Amino acid sequence: MSVSRVVELEGHIIDSGMMQAAFGIIMDRGGSFDVEEFDIGRRKDKESYARLLVTADTEEDLQRIVHDLHQQGANPADPADATLEPAPEDRVVPHGFYSTTNHPTQIRYEGEWVDVEDVEMDCAVVVEERESPRGSEESSGNEPRDGDSNVRAYTKVLNAVEEGDRIVTGDAGIRVQPPERPRDQEGAFGFMQGGVSSERPSESTIQQIAEAIEETKAEGGNVLVVAGPALIHSGAREDLARLVENGYVDSLSIGNGFAVHDIERDLYGTSLGVNTETLDHARHGHKHHIYAISEVIRAGGIEEAVEDGLIDSGVMYQCVENDVPYVIAGSIRDDGPLPDTITDAIEAQNAIREQAHEADMVLMLSTLLHSVAVGNCLPSTARVVCVDINPATVTQLLDRGSAQAVGMVTDIGTFVPILAENLLEEGAVELDD
Amino acid sequence: MSVSRVVELEGHIIDSGMMQAAFGIIMDRGGSFDVEEFDIGRRKDKESYARLLVTADTEEDLQRIVHDLHQQGANPADPADATLEPAPEDRVVPHGFYSTTNHPTQIRYEGEWVDVEDVEMDCAVVVEERESPRGSEESSGNEPRDGDSNVRAYTKVLNAVEEGDRIVTGDAGIRVQPPERPRDQEGAFGFMQGGVSSERPSESTIQQIAEAIEETKAEGGNVLVVAGPALIHSGAREDLARLVENGYVDSLSIGNGFAVHDIERDLYGTSLGVNTETLDHARHGHKHHIYAISEVIRAGGIEEAVEDGLIDSGVMYQCVENDVPYVIAGSIRDDGPLPDTITDAIEAQNAIREQAHEADMVLMLSTLLHSVAVGNCLPSTARVVCVDINPATVTQLLDRGSAQAVGMVTDIGTFVPILAENLLEEGAVELDD
Amino acid sequence: MSVSRVVELEGHIIDSGMMQAAFGIIMDRGGSFDVEEFDIGRRKDKESYARLLVTADTEEDLQRIVHDLHQQGANPADPADATLEPAPEDRVVPHGFYSTTNHPTQIRYEGEWVDVEDVEMDCAVVVEERESPRGSEESSGNEPRDGDSNVRAYTKVLNAVEEGDRIVTGDAGIRVQPPERPRDQEGAFGFMQGGVSSERPSESTIQQIAEAIEETKAEGGNVLVVAGPALIHSGAREDLARLVENGYVDSLSIGNGFAVHDIERDLYGTSLGVNTETLDHARHGHKHHIYAISEVIRAGGIEEAVEDGLIDSGVMYQCVENDVPYVIAGSIRDDGPLPDTITDAIEAQNAIREQAHEADMVLMLSTLLHSVAVGNCLPSTARVVCVDINPATVTQLLDRGSAQAVGMVTDIGTFVPILAENLLEEGAVELDD
Amino acid sequence: MSVSRVVELEGHIIDSGMMQAAFGIIMDRGGSFDVEEFDIGRRKDKESYARLLVTADTEEDLQRIVHDLHQQGANPADPADATLEPAPEDRVVPHGFYSTTNHPTQIRYEGEWVDVEDVEMDCAVVVEERESPRGSEESSGNEPRDGDSNVRAYTKVLNAVEEGDRIVTGDAGIRVQPPERPRDQEGAFGFMQGGVSSERPSESTIQQIAEAIEETKAEGGNVLVVAGPALIHSGAREDLARLVENGYVDSLSIGNGFAVHDIERDLYGTSLGVNTETLDHARHGHKHHIYAISEVIRAGGIEEAVEDGLIDSGVMYQCVENDVPYVIAGSIRDDGPLPDTITDAIEAQNAIREQAHEADMVLMLSTLLHSVAVGNCLPSTARVVCVDINPATVTQLLDRGSAQAVGMVTDIGTFVPILAENLLEEGAVELDD
Repeated sequence: MSVSRVVELEGHIIDSGMMQAAFGIIMDRGGSFDVEEFDIGRRKDKESYARLLVTADTEEDLQRIVHDLHQQGANPADPADATLEPAPEDRVVPHGFYSTTNHPTQIRYEGEWVDVEDVEMDCAVVVEERESPRGSEESSGNEPRDGDSNVRAYTKVLNAVEEGDRIVTGDAGIRVQPPERPRDQEGAFGFMQGGVSSERPSESTIQQIAEAIEETKAEGGNVLVVAGPALIHSGAREDLARLVENGYVDSLSIGNGFAVHDIERDLYGTSLGVNTETLDHARHGHKHHIYAISEVIRAGGIEEAVEDGLIDSGVMYQCVENDVPYVIAGSIRDDGPLPDTITDAIEAQNAIREQAHEADMVLMLSTLLHSVAVGNCLPSTARVVCVDINPATVTQLLDRGSAQAVGMVTDIGTFVPILAENLLEEGAVELDD
Repeated sequence: MSVSRVVELEGHIIDSGMMQAAFGIIMDRGGSFDVEEFDIGRRKDKESYARLLVTADTEEDLQRIVHDLHQQGANPADPADATLEPAPEDRVVPHGFYSTTNHPTQIRYEGEWVDVEDVEMDCAVVVEERESPRGSEESSGNEPRDGDSNVRAYTKVLNAVEEGDRIVTGDAGIRVQPPERPRDQEGAFGFMQGGVSSERPSESTIQQIAEAIEETKAEGGNVLVVAGPALIHSGAREDLARLVENGYVDSLSIGNGFAVHDIERDLYGTSLGVNTETLDHARHGHKHHIYAISEVIRAGGIEEAVEDGLIDSGVMYQCVENDVPYVIAGSIRDDGPLPDTITDAIEAQNAIREQAHEADMVLMLSTLLHSVAVGNCLPSTARVVCVDINPATVTQLLDRGSAQAVGMVTDIGTFVPILAENLLEEGAVELDD
Repeated sequence: MSVSRVVELEGHIIDSGMMQAAFGIIMDRGGSFDVEEFDIGRRKDKESYARLLVTADTEEDLQRIVHDLHQQGANPADPADATLEPAPEDRVVPHGFYSTTNHPTQIRYEGEWVDVEDVEMDCAVVVEERESPRGSEESSGNEPRDGDSNVRAYTKVLNAVEEGDRIVTGDAGIRVQPPERPRDQEGAFGFMQGGVSSERPSESTIQQIAEAIEETKAEGGNVLVVAGPALIHSGAREDLARLVENGYVDSLSIGNGFAVHDIERDLYGTSLGVNTETLDHARHGHKHHIYAISEVIRAGGIEEAVEDGLIDSGVMYQCVENDVPYVIAGSIRDDGPLPDTITDAIEAQNAIREQAHEADMVLMLSTLLHSVAVGNCLPSTARVVCVDINPATVTQLLDRGSAQAVGMVTDIGTFVPILAENLLEEGAVELDD
Repeated sequence: MSVSRVVELEGHIIDSGMMQAAFGIIMDRGGSFDVEEFDIGRRKDKESYARLLVTADTEEDLQRIVHDLHQQGANPADPADATLEPAPEDRVVPHGFYSTTNHPTQIRYEGEWVDVEDVEMDCAVVVEERESPRGSEESSGNEPRDGDSNVRAYTKVLNAVEEGDRIVTGDAGIRVQPPERPRDQEGAFGFMQGGVSSERPSESTIQQIAEAIEETKAEGGNVLVVAGPALIHSGAREDLARLVENGYVDSLSIGNGFAVHDIERDLYGTSLGVNTETLDHARHGHKHHIYAISEVIRAGGIEEAVEDGLIDSGVMYQCVENDVPYVIAGSIRDDGPLPDTITDAIEAQNAIREQAHEADMVLMLSTLLHSVAVGNCLPSTARVVCVDINPATVTQLLDRGSAQAVGMVTDIGTFVPILAENLLEEGAVELDD
């Protein structure tokens, strides 16, 4: 005696790898299938459709197969509504809650598909009926996509779950759309399918990244830069500051160390005690970072220190002057920290989450910790650039399956200057247009 | 006006990724296709079959598509014989010669498919009619698979091509069978599909490698060990020597440095001047390696030094005592070198090629240079294990697309002892059976 | 016109490198010197003494030279008392405050030298007179070494400074004692003088680390283990749990991820969704870590989950069962987090600081973030072992100049099992004594 | 009963670390010493002098101490002549032969000190009396430095030793001068004292390297570039070609792969099949390298292919056009190889040795194998620049103790363009002077 269910695959199901993955799952899990319908998109602009009858020995096996198929974007042909259960306590989710992927997701509610807002990995999905058709004021600016609906679904991280939240459990009534791999697209952003390598043409790759930034800006998109202190030590500070000044950076996500060393360079001409131009070790240089922190504490914060004229150059200075918002997330290895540093990890995550949800393109520059924190909040539809000298870092950051991602194993101290040269030359030209 | 050709795909064409790759190629190259027949293997032991009519704008475009499809294992439905042209001079191949992949390959000759012997990447394929039906004596033990045929096809590296060799050119009449990814197989050898990571359970992976070695030996297979000098410095020498002594190593492929440091340890108790047990730096230790070389030169060679009683322990000693053949390939960074070192790169490659062609399983232990040299000569059907502390080395070595490969980013100085413990315990048990 | 001052060097000033450093500083800074007295310790148990008259062109130059000499342990021959200034506000230090090194330090107060308690880098030194001669009860168990004194000096990080704290400024009246490099000591702990390498005898090094742990425990010392989640993924969890169970770990410093994956393994048999024994990918495995967090939240915390019988194996379990205190420090990349995780960075640093100040030996196992956090709080007298697969991590961690440190570039998944084998065998033997 | 000997140290013995090393050796080896005279150089242009009476328990212990001191540049006060013994056979050295360091060395012969020519590590020193005062014609252009002497001493690698060569044995009568660490010199070339890091100001470091190249050329020095194929893949080929064209490269040391990929780019516009400008994967691109080799074989060699007009751009082209000599050293991982590749390792080493002995400055660009081969032949007086993306490679290459060396962990694909920009702009300016 065996049990069956019909599942459907739609889209570029062959060249996205969806079909291969689906067949693999069924076979590996001991099931079998019949292809009831299979319509192959024969040109690159055509989508395909397949309908499979999946069979397994037990209902439990079948559910496992269907669950795994579902993660790959194969959806039951006869969808039920999503199952909702209330959270029993604050921060406590119902057993068997649905934990999200980072792909665009819909849940079925009273027979209709509702987009899940603010999609992000490892979250619960909360469904609420809106009291008024206008939408809830307390929502953080994320209007539901379907204006007529009086229901919204959105993600919540575990620590934000409140008692009584109606939370999706099980797999029923959920649709996931993994990104299709970009096709007919070579160059930098097509590269990553075969992994990360340092043996790629560096200048050409940087040029293509510059073009993608121009393109994002031209489309009105938001560029988020995530950067680690190595950027300052390696001498790339002035060029990043110029990019901020010239409007290429919409938001900055950093740690205490980045801000400290940026300000140290402004106040004492050094980074970690080394003059980044002459390469000389300054006298007392090993104390400069702690003195820099002390001066900012005395001033009351970075913005105050800029207003007082204490800080008059650098990345943080340009952010303050050009109203580019920044999040300084604290960490247990911080000195000080600066008054601007958000020391509570959950509070910092929430600030980062907002940055990530607004970003159309993210540059992750020589920081693993902050890049992972941002990456955790990104949907798979964001454009991602990861730059690090350590190939393991780049690999780890690209593992999340962004649709458009490029990784470069290169020196941040040469990457940023060449990027700035590409953008600021281009930019100058654009101004004439 | 457009041109078309029919190509066929056979085997596990979906879960091997063959179909996805084929569709991608056609679309990326600007072609289109109709699926004339598509029979999906619905259970994991069933093969699939697809017949596509591929269409492109020009004959040239079509040829490129068909060429690229062909590299992925899709073959024209109406094959012609392979085109043969004579080599105009020694070492000079005809224009447009067919350069091999490392996958099992057949060429069509007078309407019949002939297996290409000694398949290896980047070679020319030479076809010769045999004078007698018995086969040529000069062949190195590689009997053609089709005993009745009086034709053989085999690979030749460029430097071995002789004037007049009949060499395959173009793509017609050639069939390539890329390996299917192992399915229904998890564990170490199923791991590599997602890349290399150091975050894997180390002891369990080593245990599965030990099981694969046992399995290979049980099937009468040949195990080739490729090892670098780091193995000696890291203190794993005694355990590798025990594996040689106990019959787990059929062949050893090393460089001058490995042999020198193995012998240095025997003669002076040090490796690179460091006592590998007490970790003390020996007096005069920095000279030990050059003294070790000098002593072996004086004796006339490693075998002579073993026979004289000069060398009485270690990996080289066990190889001599147990008749395990070794190839010591020279390099421009060698000291000495030892009299046993083959200093000519082509001669050394030929010796390595023989080792590689005989090997069913290859352990690549902490050497990039020698592993690449061996890997260049391996067919994609060989089982490969790559171990290195540097993830970039492991990634590079696994990029060749072996059917069954496992990479471990680990410390060779702990890997070999744990492997030996697994094998020598297992072996002891097996003797009782 | 030039100015001069007499400085003294004492101890193993030549083989510690102190003299070389001192001469270099004077010359590089444009000064000159006369050696007024030089008494060389001619045997390894003899200390040396040198008195130099240092001359520079200006008082400012001289002060810089003397400051830098001072960081190297050369002290003015005619010390003044340390200068004290009150902190103008909470978290604000006086200008020119003395920022500490991690070396044993004394300050001169009313003509007497007072040990600075809880020495740690980048701190301010606060001096307070005790109200009663008995010592202040609010001190965290760190009794001043000089029982008769009614003054104590101790370090404070910037964020702990309170308005009115009397803080040391300038360089006068401060003595620093950099550790002498261990001499007459080869083996693992003598290794690090020449940098970090993966080409060292691994098993012998691990054995010497085991001996150092035994020695530390035999002397009643405190062993702090700092560990990252890679330890769990790499399959070393059971062996670390055994070390905790057998009393080799006095304190554990980890992040949320370590605890989550340890508990995931207990609840679901996986780590990051991979079964660490069979290496199979579990069904739904990618959700296990988030489910594990959810279950612990539901229980109320790790200790509660152990008491409830939910968690019954692993590192966290053994810590709870054996009363081994742990600090789980939060980070912006955390999922969840667990209720036990300290999410505020400053609070977490304070908890880590206490662990670090109590530790005589610290094992830093495959985590950069937590190791840096602990390392920031360690005096240079602590014994340190750093183990990571990434050489850059090991180098960075060893750069702080511990007197006795060993770095190993190895696989944590093989390191811990071999260490446990060494210790638990040794330990068994010791019990008979 | 104990034995003693007087040794002398001269030069910048304190700030070079010589004295510290000497005291450490004596103590570690169980000896003791009296400082009979100690005259400290008190300004940076003054040298120091120390005379020590070293005492040990046995003559054997004393000899070991004196041997080790000697390696550090401490020389017996009462030197004897060097001991000479004839080589018993070709390639066989006498027992106890003196194996060289890479530091400037002199041997004492009939009461006079004779400079050892062509100093290089791990060689034997051969002494020969010249038949005529003019010097031997068979010497490879290396005239003895002391024109009046009728004796010359020079290094020979083991494989070049001929029966009857008079070879220095033991330690007597040998003086070694380790380089002093550069002082009063900060910036890039002063950096390396603290190890290698990727966290250094990249552009400033490259600028200082450019200045050092200018300086070397201005002094009439010889610049040797050692480069690996990653340079081509990373898109830096055109800039290196411009440097060759503009006279900044006097000699090039490469492998077969570098030349193949440089020529592949010329013939097919790709490197490893990837278009280094558009980043597109070329059709048939994976065959380009083997086709490039085949074309050069057909032409008869690189020079012939340039002359035939087949090759008309790139690094090899500019070398041929500008008479910049190159050595292409073969290796077991080579495809082809090209007819110009020296396949015998000893022959290739000899060619490299000549390049190394003529070089005043060596740029080692992203190749470990060829850099080690060149480094093996370099005296410690050569200026060395090592550039690689892998920190372990840079560390390994800098371990040889060059007096002036700088290591950069950076991307060769951005390093060479920025270096070229610095040099070619600078050069243009210089032409006006």
